[in-house]
Amino acid sequence: MAKGNLFVVTAPSGAGKTTLVAALLAADANVQLSISYTTRAPRAGEVDGKDYHFVEREQFERMISAGELLEHAEVYGNYYGTSQVWINEAINTGRDILLEIDWQGAQQVRRLFPEAIGLFVLPPSLETLESRLRNRGKDSDEVINKRMAVAREECSHVDEFDFVIVNEHIDDAVRDIVSVVRAQRLTLVRQSARHTALISSLKG
Amino acid sequence: MAKGNLFVVTAPSGAGKTTLVAALLAADANVQLSISYTTRAPRAGEVDGKDYHFVEREQFERMISAGELLEHAEVYGNYYGTSQVWINEAINTGRDILLEIDWQGAQQVRRLFPEAIGLFVLPPSLETLESRLRNRGKDSDEVINKRMAVAREECSHVDEFDFVIVNEHIDDAVRDIVSVVRAQRLTLVRQSARHTALISSLKG
Repeated sequence: MAKGNLFVVTAPSGAGKTTLVAALLAADANVQLSISYTTRAPRAGEVDGKDYHFVEREQFERMISAGELLEHAEVYGNYYGTSQVWINEAINTGRDILLEIDWQGAQQVRRLFPEAIGLFVLPPSLETLESRLRNRGKDSDEVINKRMAVAREECSHVDEFDFVIVNEHIDDAVRDIVSVVRAQRLTLVRQSARHTALISSLKG
Repeated sequence: MAKGNLFVVTAPSGAGKTTLVAALLAADANVQLSISYTTRAPRAGEVDGKDYHFVEREQFERMISAGELLEHAEVYGNYYGTSQVWINEAINTGRDILLEIDWQGAQQVRRLFPEAIGLFVLPPSLETLESRLRNRGKDSDEVINKRMAVAREECSHVDEFDFVIVNEHIDDAVRDIVSVVRAQRLTLVRQSARHTALISSLKG
């Protein structure tokens, strides 16, 4: 049985990562988004174990202390994190798991899970990025500038990733991400585990 | 300018490599077959510089002595080989070059060109391989057994390759090889060279 792969997808906001990931999930039934743990309350319609694993603050902090989290962060007073136990279980069934996290989360994952495959999504130009961040809402220049600074900080970590996708034309970018995921299933290590009997009969 | 990649595709005969490679070339205009040098005479319709670079025996032996060949072999008294100079020129224009060679040629290439990406194509079963080798002609069992022995020897080198494609359903196998080639263009090294200005503007 071949293990699945863990993909970490990171991008500045405005790069179109969400659209890209949705298209990948639609195109490839073997890929699944990681289900995070969080201490925030479920919103209307959210299902425990599907959208998130909703847990109490004490439980989350126990998971941190026990080293069970591949990565975690606190945002507006709520914890969000990825369970290493859950990821390993999912991957051992042969599924590919995708984590959408920022560069800091990606660094944490890489330390604990060095075989994770990092994908970074870039916008086609600085101008496109800025116009996408502007179009999102009617925000002040100050807010936009702050978003741009965050986006650039994110981009400054591109060199830490294995693959880079420039999202200029969404159809091409979708083909790119689908190809990377498919190709990583065909590495010698994965195929040797998947086709052990075949390979030994052909060598024999 | 991002360099292209050099792919080495190896398979036992009967694995369907020729069909697979033809489909890849049809699907991806940036991939080109390597043009070998040979000392054999051109056949009717063969064009010098397109099908082969046709050279005299002395010139071929000079290329061997000068270390200009990535790999070469002598088959039925004729030399066949790949020029390192030609490969480097082709790759420097950004094209991906594909070499169809056996495991011995692949080993030679790997020594001189360690960044070459090796793909091995396997048949879906030993029985399929044998029936494909039988169907090719009306040969004696002795001839078939010899072919099987050569095919198994080829397969015994699968572990020396980076990617493995099992050619069970040709459509899937084509998608596999197309994905591997596309994904290898998206590595950090290649994309950093291709999008240097973009990346530096986004980091800046």
